[in-house]
Formats: sequence, structure tokens, C-alpha cells
Amino acid sequence: MTELKPVPHGLLQAFRAYESALMSDDVAALDALVADSPTTLHGDAAGLLIGHEQIAASHGTRGGAPKRRIVQTHVQVIDEDHALIVAVTELDRGGRGLQTQLWARDPVRIEYGGWQVTAAHVSVPAPAFDSRIWRVVGDPLVSSHTADGALSGETVAVKDLFAVAGFAVGAGSPSWLEQAPVASSHAAAVASLLDAGASVRGIARTEEFAYSLSGLNAHYGAPPNPKAPGRIPGGSSSGPATAVALGQASIGLGTDTGGSIRVPAAYQGLYGIRTSHGAVSREGLLPLAKAFDTVGWMTRSAFLLQAVGDVLLPESPAPVPVEEIHLVPSLVGLAAEDVATAVSEALPEAKPLEWDPARLDEWRQAFITGQAYQAWQAHGAWLETRLDTLGEAVRGRFEMARTVTRAQADEARAVLSQARAEILEVVGDRVLAYPSASTVAPTAADAVGVRDDTLRLTCIAGIAGLPAVSIPVRTPTNLPAGLCLVAAPGRDRDLLALAQRLAE
Amino acid sequence: MTELKPVPHGLLQAFRAYESALMSDDVAALDALVADSPTTLHGDAAGLLIGHEQIAASHGTRGGAPKRRIVQTHVQVIDEDHALIVAVTELDRGGRGLQTQLWARDPVRIEYGGWQVTAAHVSVPAPAFDSRIWRVVGDPLVSSHTADGALSGETVAVKDLFAVAGFAVGAGSPSWLEQAPVASSHAAAVASLLDAGASVRGIARTEEFAYSLSGLNAHYGAPPNPKAPGRIPGGSSSGPATAVALGQASIGLGTDTGGSIRVPAAYQGLYGIRTSHGAVSREGLLPLAKAFDTVGWMTRSAFLLQAVGDVLLPESPAPVPVEEIHLVPSLVGLAAEDVATAVSEALPEAKPLEWDPARLDEWRQAFITGQAYQAWQAHGAWLETRLDTLGEAVRGRFEMARTVTRAQADEARAVLSQARAEILEVVGDRVLAYPSASTVAPTAADAVGVRDDTLRLTCIAGIAGLPAVSIPVRTPTNLPAGLCLVAAPGRDRDLLALAQRLAE
Repeated sequence: MTELKPVPHGLLQAFRAYESALMSDDVAALDALVADSPTTLHGDAAGLLIGHEQIAASHGTRGGAPKRRIVQTHVQVIDEDHALIVAVTELDRGGRGLQTQLWARDPVRIEYGGWQVTAAHVSVPAPAFDSRIWRVVGDPLVSSHTADGALSGETVAVKDLFAVAGFAVGAGSPSWLEQAPVASSHAAAVASLLDAGASVRGIARTEEFAYSLSGLNAHYGAPPNPKAPGRIPGGSSSGPATAVALGQASIGLGTDTGGSIRVPAAYQGLYGIRTSHGAVSREGLLPLAKAFDTVGWMTRSAFLLQAVGDVLLPESPAPVPVEEIHLVPSLVGLAAEDVATAVSEALPEAKPLEWDPARLDEWRQAFITGQAYQAWQAHGAWLETRLDTLGEAVRGRFEMARTVTRAQADEARAVLSQARAEILEVVGDRVLAYPSASTVAPTAADAVGVRDDTLRLTCIAGIAGLPAVSIPVRTPTNLPAGLCLVAAPGRDRDLLALAQRLAE
Repeated sequence: MTELKPVPHGLLQAFRAYESALMSDDVAALDALVADSPTTLHGDAAGLLIGHEQIAASHGTRGGAPKRRIVQTHVQVIDEDHALIVAVTELDRGGRGLQTQLWARDPVRIEYGGWQVTAAHVSVPAPAFDSRIWRVVGDPLVSSHTADGALSGETVAVKDLFAVAGFAVGAGSPSWLEQAPVASSHAAAVASLLDAGASVRGIARTEEFAYSLSGLNAHYGAPPNPKAPGRIPGGSSSGPATAVALGQASIGLGTDTGGSIRVPAAYQGLYGIRTSHGAVSREGLLPLAKAFDTVGWMTRSAFLLQAVGDVLLPESPAPVPVEEIHLVPSLVGLAAEDVATAVSEALPEAKPLEWDPARLDEWRQAFITGQAYQAWQAHGAWLETRLDTLGEAVRGRFEMARTVTRAQADEARAVLSQARAEILEVVGDRVLAYPSASTVAPTAADAVGVRDDTLRLTCIAGIAGLPAVSIPVRTPTNLPAGLCLVAAPGRDRDLLALAQRLAE
């Protein structure tokens, strides 16, 4: 029981010093007021930081605390060296916050009477919505006119590449959005979901023109990765992925050209499908590279992944139940050890398939060249005078794309044609399994480093137009990773049924 | 310093018992695990509950905790009878939460080894947005095409009665929204704000057809009142008010027929203006009662309240600086004591004006009748077969409105005409001051009880078409209340300048 004990000497002074340091962003004072221990804790909406080192590193980098004043202070005295302080704050920008701190006194320390925070939990009112995830969101943004469809009650986060009637397509680029016309009708995939009873929750962020796998949009910020705090969300279907991971929508509608569904699904522990090339209508979709662009979606359950497939995919005249899964050790070996372990352990009974695509690096390069050529075909006319509106990473890619000659594109096409033949032959009527991405979600600093390794894995389905389903697995340190199942073009429904069976 | 001490006996069992009670909504177990003390604390996004009584009352009434599992547990042992437990949770609906609990052991208790929670702080991921506040929200929803207007950088929460091009007007009624046409152009007030550089943040909730002062929308729930947690937001401009109070928008655009700006402004500690009848265009606004409907807005600063006035109000050919404020003791006396005190103390130098409108109850009744007659004129044709779609309180009002005869309306009009003459004469070239609402924000249970008392105060400006500015004041117990300044029709700008001077 908390009894009414006298507030220990110096505690409130230390509490006020902390508040003042916070308001003046006095990093040195904050560091001194936080216990220098690996067990010190600091939690807020961005996650829980563990240990003084992580916490000190965050001081100053989070851009300072929002300006506020304390309107209530409650002290629970435990003994003369320990107390809990719970404070209600009122933010200058509006709304009230709450802060809980456990304070401990180290009699040896002189500064601040020896008082330091050993654990802090800070909440502030949420903004209207997270504009890193969404551009527009509603309750719903667009309602279905069917109350008893197969997808009734489901909510869709639409990647900002699909037309939603009444809104412009933003493509992750403020400059594009500014001049984009308001769509007069829905993209085909959006219309089909609405017809099936789902409502549109909102338009979710994408990387600029979907030309990225990181989700680090330079203009709107990176959506958070709730399953791996502090790591990137994966892209380019980053907004729909995070919206689904956070439960803010149940279906993330996106696209996958070179991994843009599979990578965020893997990084955020979601189910995801990139459909066979051409299987789902791309009407009303802003293209990146038409030869490779596909519609895809992400969900938190295999059941819903399949239910959406039942709506969007063409009928499968003769579903073929999958009896065997072939794990491809050479491709598993291209992933980081933790991901390789997670993928292998998820399929203990899979049969190994000895296939070692010797020219995989060449294929990847041809895919990059072919995609770049098409991307410039699609957007070069508009971007020619506007490359400086793009974020650095995407700008670099379009600058490269701009230099790809017709001859280089033809050469890439020839390589891809051979690659496609080999891939289709190896796949045959099998289902292959390998990692969806080469690593778990990296930090933003490491994002560039993993792109090539991941593309080596993702380009296979891209080149051959294969359907690919990503299934969430966990690494030994409990981070999300993706197990990718691919099959021959057109076998989307077989893969969805398989994923659903594996989930059971 | 937190040293690595052994976890005390029974603590983790109690922690798990709490978690299990929470998941099964076992109210008795939860009560037993929360320290029975007036200093026990429980904080979450809805605010801080103080004392076992408040906390126990909330058990079971908050609809149970969202289903979750604990993914990390950190224990800071203080001594063998005290420990802090910080846990990271993963919600079934998606996203991660954080929970901090201070546990204390009472050696006398047998249950759960004597362990109880003395303070808890719980955070869960925010939903995509708060649909009690907003219907649709964007970044922005509608952008201004002016980068250097007087209101550039400001964001508007538009009450769901004004047309926003591309959206239907919802009027707080799902049934109305379902059949409402998409607006092809903005309401005049919305267009003016956009022209001045403000952007539209979103469409915010209103009470059904604005026919309420509570903000307790039966379909979408009541927006929270961040300045007075647990109390109603005030209506009918409830969504814009809460959006501004929370800092989710800087300008709340609304309407005031019988108090719908002044009441939420008072309840939520905002600045608000109800403009002179007819001063600001109502084009593109769904009417409630045309003879009384006015455009109004709410802000967190007197400065911005005035800046919006500079944009929306007609030019004032001869601004008259206000030299004196007349407090009306008889009207102050109609308010609850705490509000009366707050209002009087805010204007220590005001001159009392002896005016005791003897027929005020009759005026209020005539206002109610006149408003009802007009409301049925406006909406009766549509509502005739749809009264059952309305929430109980608003339905009751429309059912009454339906019975008002032409003769009764004429009679009311005669009373109102006399009242208007008396009010205009008393006001003259003075600025009168009295409470914006008769009480602080009541709880939902008490909302019905205060309506009549508040209408007695708010109907005065409504009847005479006066501009009225509500200025936030604080009661002795630190709850928000409103000081209302009124003047002759057309003196909106004088009142805004006065409010700005008082704020300085």
C-alpha cells in the first residue's frame, strides 16, 4: 500500500530540473538525470528503449519534446530513496499527455540530490492521424454499397498509385500530386473490392512512383514498423503495410514490380501476395514498369489473403492442390543467417530443390535495366525537368533510368527472356520456397546496403511473372521475416490455398 | 540505482493474474489486484483516474481491454515489497502497446500474495484516427492554392454541415449521408478560408442536423473533451471543437444557431465566435433554422480567432474600440456558482449593468418554438418517414418540431420580435458580458439537465442576431468555462479586437 509518506528531500527539485531540461532540450542535463544502467527504460509511442545508452542516443535526435506544462503531479513515495511520479501534461499544441517516472536516489551522487529516473513512460495525444502512413483517411473514405459481400466489414488501405474516384493519385510525390487530376472513377481493383463489400479506409503512402523497396519516403517520412520498432517498414507499399500491421485497415492494396509487396510483408510480419503478371487488372493504376508491374495485397491472416484473392483473381478452372514444397537451398543461402534459419525451420518437411541459377547477378542487373527503361518511358517526360523534386534515392534511380539506351534495354530484354525460360522450366508445376527478402527489416542507415541482396531474390518472380506469396516467419531473435512461395503464372489461387493450409 | 535484485516471491504470479483478469474482463479480480486507496492511479489515453473508487467504476464499463499478448516484460525491483513492471504488448488488432505498473505488497493480504497495483499507465497504438471527432481527414484533405495568404499554415476542421467539394454533407446522420449528393463546390466560408491560405484538415463531426448542445452523437459517439476528461465536448460543433482542443486542427469552422459554437468553446476552453446573423455567407451550409443560423469558428488563441474574422467578416467601416465592458449580474446569476465566480473574476473592472429580462423564460420558449418550426420546415419532408433513424435526444426535438403549428410559430415570432427590440435597446453601443454556458461541461448523464439553463443564456444572442465571442476562463477547480461578450449586430470585429486585447 502506498501510505502518505513525506516526499523525500530533493525529489521535486530533480523532477523540475528534468522538466526544465526537457523543455530546453538540454541533452547533458537529461543524460545526467537518467540512471546510467542497462536496465533503465524509456517508453513512448515509438517503442521502448532499453538501457541508458539507447536512451541517451535518443536525446536530441527526437527533435526535442513537444512544449508543455504540467497540470497535475502525483507522487507515490516508496521509501526515502524511491518514488513514482505521475504527471498530467497539457501540450501547447493542444491536448493532454501523461508521464510516469520511477525515481531512485543514489546517495553517492551529488548532482540533483542523487535522484535519477530509472523508468519513464510518456504518452502524448495522437495527432489527427499519422501522415507517414496515410494521405487521406475516412470512416470510411469510400463506402461499399453492398452490406453482405464476401468482404463486408473489411477495410482497405489503398496505395497512392490506384485511382480512387474524387481524389488525385499522389504517387508519393508532392509535386506529382499538385498537378494530378482528380480521378472520376475507381481503379478496377478498388472497384472490385468495393463491390465485394469492403470499404476504402484511406489512401496510404507509397515511395515515390513505387521505385524503392525501403519505404523511406523523403517527403512524408517513413511509416513506422510496429513489429520491429526502429527498423524500416519496407516499400514501396509501405503505407498499406504499416496500416495493416497497426490494425488501421485489414487489407493493404498495393503493387509489386520488383518486391514492393513481398518486402514490406516480410519486414512487418504480414501475409502478402504479388499476383501473376497480368492476372489482376491494372486499369486505373499508375505504372512503374508495365512488363513487371502487378497488383498485390497484404493482410494479417492467410484467410483474408485468400478471401481477397477470391474476389480479385480470375477463376481457376482446375485448382491443383499443392502436395509438396521445394525449398531452394541456394536461394536460402543468399539470405542472412537468421532469415535463412527462420525460413528453413518453417518448412521442416520441404524437399530441397537443387537449382543454382548461375547467372542470377546478371538477371538481376537485366531486371534493373529493364525496369529502369520502362520507368523512364512511363515518367521521363514529366520528370525530365523535375528530377530535383524527388528524394535522393529515387532521384538516383530515375537519373540512372534516364541514361538507359534502347540498345541496353534490348540487351536486357534478351537476358530476361532467357532467364524467364529457365525460371519457368525450373518451377514447372512445383511450388518453390525461399526467403521473401534477404534480411529482416534493416535500420534506415542500413537500407541501401540490403537492396541488391533482396532484389537478387525478388527479381525471380518479377522476371518470370510468377505469383508469389509471402508468409510471416520469426527469426531466432523474434524479428519478422518472410517465407516466399512461388509457382507457375496463374497458380495464384493454389498458393493462397497453400498459405491458408500452412497457417492452420 | 536499480540493481539486479531477485524478483520478489509471488510478484510475477500476481502480474500474470492481472493480465488474465484483464483479458477475461474479470472485474472482481481486477478490483482485488488494484490497491484500495484514494491515491491509486490509472492512466490511459482517456485520462488519469485517481483513487480505487474511480478505477473500479471504470472496470467493466470501458468495454474490456483490447485482446493482446505480452511480448516483453521488464521488472525493476525496488525492495521485496515493491517493484515496477514495464511490459510491451502486441495487440490482436495490430500494433504494440506499453504498460507500466508499480506493484506493492501488503503483507497482511493473502490474495495474490498480497501484491497489488498502486499505479498503472497504459498506452495502446492509436487507431487510424478518432472517428468520434472526424469523418474524413487528410494531409491535407483540401489544399490551399495560396502559399502566402493571411491564414497560410492554418488547418481547418470543417463541421459536417458545410459543403466541401468532392464530399457529401453528412450532417451527423448516417442515413442522411447515405443519400446526400457529392458537393461540386465548396461552401462560401470554406472557399474563403482556402483562398486565404488555410487548408482543410478534414470534415469533423456534428450532432445530427446540429440540433443539440451536447455533442453526444448517437451514431459516432461523443468526441472527447481533452480539457475536462470524462465530460461532454459540447455541441453541436463538437468535432471541430475537440479537433482544435487536441491540436489536430487550428481552426474549427462551425455554426451557432442557439449556442453551438459558444457551448463547446466554453466546455473545452477555446476561443469561439458566433457571428452576427447574416454577416458571414451561409451559402453551401445545410440549415437548421435560417432565422437564427450563423457561421462561427473556434481557435486556441484570440489572435487566430481575429485573423479568421479578418478573412470571413465584412469590412468594418468604422471600428469602435471598446472602452468598457458591462457585466450583467442577473445573467451571471443564472449560471452555476463556479462559472459565475470564474466569469466575474475574469472581469474585475467591468461595470455592472442592471438588466433583468423578466420574460427570459418566455423568450427562451419562443426561441425553442421558432427554431423547431424552422427546423421542421428545413428537414421535415425528408425526416417525416425517417425519424427512427435519429438518436433519441435529437429525435425527441424533431418530434416536437413536427407538432409546432403555424399559429404557434406566429405567436413565437411575435414574442421574439419584442424580445429582439428589448435586447437591442439594452445592448445599444455597449459590450455586455455574461457566461457562455450555465455550467462547466457536465458528464453525459447530466447533459439533459443543463440544456434549458444554458439555452436561457445563449438564446439572447440567437434571438437578436448578436455577435458573441466566448473567451476561456477557469473555475476555482480549474475546469474550463466561457465568458461571453456580446454587442450590437455588425460589431463582430470590435468583439474580436477586444478578445485579443483581453488575451494580452
